[in-house]
Amino acid sequence: MSARGAPPGGGLTNVADLLAAGGPRLAALLERSEARLTEVAAGHGDRLAEHAAGTLAAGGKRLRPTLVFIVAGESVSTELVEAAVAVELLHMATLVHDDVLDRAALRRGRPTVYASGGRSAATATGDLLFSRAFAVLAGAGSAVAVRALSDASSALARGELMQREDAWSSVVTAERYLERCRLKTARLFEAACRLGALLGDPGAGAADALGAYGDRIGLAFQIFDDVLDVSGPQERTGKERGTDLLDGTVTLPLILARERDPRLRDLDLRSEVTDAAQAIALCDEIGATGVLDDAREAALRHVAGAKAELDRVELPSEQRALLELVADGVVERYA
Amino acid sequence: MSARGAPPGGGLTNVADLLAAGGPRLAALLERSEARLTEVAAGHGDRLAEHAAGTLAAGGKRLRPTLVFIVAGESVSTELVEAAVAVELLHMATLVHDDVLDRAALRRGRPTVYASGGRSAATATGDLLFSRAFAVLAGAGSAVAVRALSDASSALARGELMQREDAWSSVVTAERYLERCRLKTARLFEAACRLGALLGDPGAGAADALGAYGDRIGLAFQIFDDVLDVSGPQERTGKERGTDLLDGTVTLPLILARERDPRLRDLDLRSEVTDAAQAIALCDEIGATGVLDDAREAALRHVAGAKAELDRVELPSEQRALLELVADGVVERYA
Repeated sequence: MSARGAPPGGGLTNVADLLAAGGPRLAALLERSEARLTEVAAGHGDRLAEHAAGTLAAGGKRLRPTLVFIVAGESVSTELVEAAVAVELLHMATLVHDDVLDRAALRRGRPTVYASGGRSAATATGDLLFSRAFAVLAGAGSAVAVRALSDASSALARGELMQREDAWSSVVTAERYLERCRLKTARLFEAACRLGALLGDPGAGAADALGAYGDRIGLAFQIFDDVLDVSGPQERTGKERGTDLLDGTVTLPLILARERDPRLRDLDLRSEVTDAAQAIALCDEIGATGVLDDAREAALRHVAGAKAELDRVELPSEQRALLELVADGVVERYA
Repeated sequence: MSARGAPPGGGLTNVADLLAAGGPRLAALLERSEARLTEVAAGHGDRLAEHAAGTLAAGGKRLRPTLVFIVAGESVSTELVEAAVAVELLHMATLVHDDVLDRAALRRGRPTVYASGGRSAATATGDLLFSRAFAVLAGAGSAVAVRALSDASSALARGELMQREDAWSSVVTAERYLERCRLKTARLFEAACRLGALLGDPGAGAADALGAYGDRIGLAFQIFDDVLDVSGPQERTGKERGTDLLDGTVTLPLILARERDPRLRDLDLRSEVTDAAQAIALCDEIGATGVLDDAREAALRHVAGAKAELDRVELPSEQRALLELVADGVVERYA
């Protein structure tokens, strides 16, 4: 695929493709935000630095910083880098706290802070990352930006709570599932785009539309992620199928499958899915109902919705193409 | 004790005295911040609202908001109220997370969020309170203020981690203990005073001196709190003596007592202090060494240091008297 002129709808299969499409500006900004993340993790006590650095080094796609940069257009500024770093720090803070609550031993193949440092260290590390996110963004000097991030942060906390409340429930509706996706995932994507607009070329006038674009790709991202948990394959996702089911996390595939298959409707996750083999067997049962295509289509509808939001703003054609590429990319991550 | 003209060094035994000394301005501001705290706790999902409201209703002395208001002089503004609310929200967030880590059932005689909602709800509630603190302060519009709060927040996380690292340790020095007090307690007092200066009459030029005042009274506050854990009496403190010792938290009285009494030096807290009766017996042993007066004197030296910091700024005499009253008050809470 060629660089800047990549066609909308092209197969964005990995970060390398996106970097190529984003050109040297995006690569340079991501390099700056990476250096800044490393810097922020250091300098707050040896133990916390070690835990925070470990979380950082575990990497990830840096999708949220990428969104900040792409939405900002051609803009290149320290404020933009700080905003991208703040969004990623907040994301990492929630991962560290999630791992405490899930008692997770591994994330992306590395020991979690919870596993290596214990519950207290992980809670404190998450709190530190939260604090640093706001310190970094405050340094960038925009109260509106801080407000956008703190609103997303509140939504994340609410989403986390909702997920725990709904664990093992047999009556979660698709609507409630979607609300949870919005709180847990989409609101931070929205904030990333809003920050890119506020601090970049589009400006405050385009922040609502670009925020809505972020919200829709966040929803698509989460729905697709939940499909992958059922569909696998493991060699692509890097984790066993059915981990959500084993945690009691009820996602769209199971919700849809329950509407089709009476046996699944009556299934009690908590008592009947207690090991990895049972979870994988349930994934197969869900897949057999044919709902995975429906769920993928739901994700694609949000991708289309995200692109439609872009009609509300005037954007250079190259930037628009890049934003459409990202939108397609969130549901083609392992395609 | 008379109101505004209360002499420095007078016995500030409770909030009522302070309110009387602070006059109608302080009472009105505290009423506004209380209403705003209630408002902030609502509106983020029923369950979280309930948990957050419970934490709020448990009350507390609101010492940090009071500091914001007193340091600000005669200033009365929405920004000041928002800053006071933000500081208190951050304080409450750390209490909620501490209770998770301590598996605490009660705080101030009420069930903790951890006890009533479980670990997940409490972690999410703490995260929400963190987020709201920054949202509220960002709304007040000063990036310098957000930075002050986020720096204090990072310090709190580091202090929390340090406390866990040092638990049950027999080699904690007085210096290390003091550093922990600074991180866990004094930095937020410092931030409260810094915010009051920045947003109130004293202005940015006086923020360092008034921040240093806050730091010193924070240290005095924590040292005195740790003395009370050993000295009691329970009918005044509202909790049994020796709870720190039972948690493995090594504080100044034990550190000093170990220098005097070989038996205490060789004591292994983790294996020899495992129930309330043993903790109370240890409190008596520590008291018998005579170190409690030394620890109280250490707290008083910080009170004197706090007052000395006030020499660095020009303040109206009534405001200075009030700040000295607060400084004395932190070590006379149950006198």
